[in-house]
Amino acid sequence: MSDSNMHPIVQQMMDGDAMSQWLGIDVLESGPGVCTCRMTVREEMVNGFGIAHGAITYALADSTLAFAVNAQGQHAVSVTSTIQHLAAVQVGDVLTARAIPRAEGGRIAHVDVEVINQHGDRVAWLTATGYKRSSSWA
Amino acid sequence: MSDSNMHPIVQQMMDGDAMSQWLGIDVLESGPGVCTCRMTVREEMVNGFGIAHGAITYALADSTLAFAVNAQGQHAVSVTSTIQHLAAVQVGDVLTARAIPRAEGGRIAHVDVEVINQHGDRVAWLTATGYKRSSSWA
Amino acid sequence: MSDSNMHPIVQQMMDGDAMSQWLGIDVLESGPGVCTCRMTVREEMVNGFGIAHGAITYALADSTLAFAVNAQGQHAVSVTSTIQHLAAVQVGDVLTARAIPRAEGGRIAHVDVEVINQHGDRVAWLTATGYKRSSSWA
Amino acid sequence: MSDSNMHPIVQQMMDGDAMSQWLGIDVLESGPGVCTCRMTVREEMVNGFGIAHGAITYALADSTLAFAVNAQGQHAVSVTSTIQHLAAVQVGDVLTARAIPRAEGGRIAHVDVEVINQHGDRVAWLTATGYKRSSSWA
Repeated sequence: MSDSNMHPIVQQMMDGDAMSQWLGIDVLESGPGVCTCRMTVREEMVNGFGIAHGAITYALADSTLAFAVNAQGQHAVSVTSTIQHLAAVQVGDVLTARAIPRAEGGRIAHVDVEVINQHGDRVAWLTATGYKRSSSWA
Repeated sequence: MSDSNMHPIVQQMMDGDAMSQWLGIDVLESGPGVCTCRMTVREEMVNGFGIAHGAITYALADSTLAFAVNAQGQHAVSVTSTIQHLAAVQVGDVLTARAIPRAEGGRIAHVDVEVINQHGDRVAWLTATGYKRSSSWA
Repeated sequence: MSDSNMHPIVQQMMDGDAMSQWLGIDVLESGPGVCTCRMTVREEMVNGFGIAHGAITYALADSTLAFAVNAQGQHAVSVTSTIQHLAAVQVGDVLTARAIPRAEGGRIAHVDVEVINQHGDRVAWLTATGYKRSSSWA
Repeated sequence: MSDSNMHPIVQQMMDGDAMSQWLGIDVLESGPGVCTCRMTVREEMVNGFGIAHGAITYALADSTLAFAVNAQGQHAVSVTSTIQHLAAVQVGDVLTARAIPRAEGGRIAHVDVEVINQHGDRVAWLTATGYKRSSSWA
């Protein structure tokens, strides 16, 4: 299911991205400004309510936007993000996150990420602002 | 270092909170509207830049606010949160998160969480809005 | 251009909404969960840079979402909103805001508002969380 | 009550800032990274509920942070802001906004703004991220 033709910058990032590996993220599609990722929620990802910890959808969405923005070439980091938790996520749910570029200007990139479950229900929405450094991926 | 006198609701939450256990969160102080938590960043928590994934400070801050708000008695969940990433976090850094209640009204609770490192530098700030359900902790 | 068939709750709100009147808001479309509004930026709306003050797009977007959510019947107020300023807005620009419901659950409504100018450029994006009170519009 | 010793950049901004003039903003204190502003809510500032429109506290807070950040010398604009509406604001209320710098790094500035009423109640909280351009105030 993962992308055997992953964009080279995303491949380079994923190789060092221990957190995304722990999450079990599959990169389904990648390219400059584009990314779709998928993961399955495991028992070790729940909070005190027995549902997925809010950090799980945040983590998936944050990795997805980082791949989309960095694949444009410049080093880019999240400076601020707003996440809306729209529905509870259960163990076994399969989550798909898709980056939606909103606008760019100068060093700033605005990107949204939609996260849906296996039923197509929207479970989280991330609205993020990233900053592009002057340095680039080799 | 952890709180042997953890508030009973927080103890009950932590017992089932596999994600906070994976993070290695120590609850230093807990009570209604009050919580301070600490954790150490590990190799398996880095992103593609070799620094802590943004979801690590998010997770620590989200657990901290959940403990603070739920210890008031009602079941409460995050509905939306804004995180500002203020400085890079390295492997080995010791992070301390402290809940700062901002305001409450009806079913809504506004809580900020400050996250500092072992040098006292502020590395992240979470501004969260929670919703209190009609159900309560036993 | 304004809606002569404005939804009765929106009409009732607009009648008392001195701020939206000062802004010169025309309600182009209204209904439960639906609203599109338009206004023209005037000289008295600029900030120290000579472009529209950030509060202008915020105000237009906030009115638009209030009309969309309240037209469902219950009294509803914004509890927290994130606005992204995506492009500068000039005097004379004609701004159109459209409410995009994201999700609802219990007393919480998540609504986005897109704001475009007369060229179709997206100039602002509001991501809002509203709270529905137990009281209703007559 | 206004600051006869207003910082020269803030004075220059206020001279062109028609919106802040309409709001009736008094700059009580100003300087690099520092600003406190005050205004009184008027009848023409209410929304359909007869209380201050959410854009009023947003506008006051946004002007306050713009003055604080720009007084450091570089041209700086808000890129994204989250506002929490914490209590209703009535006609006649006297609002005081105070900028609280949170962190700076490169071109990015994180600033919070607290807004209180004449009773000292916190009515709104703005968490903003600004971007510093390469150009400066003369």
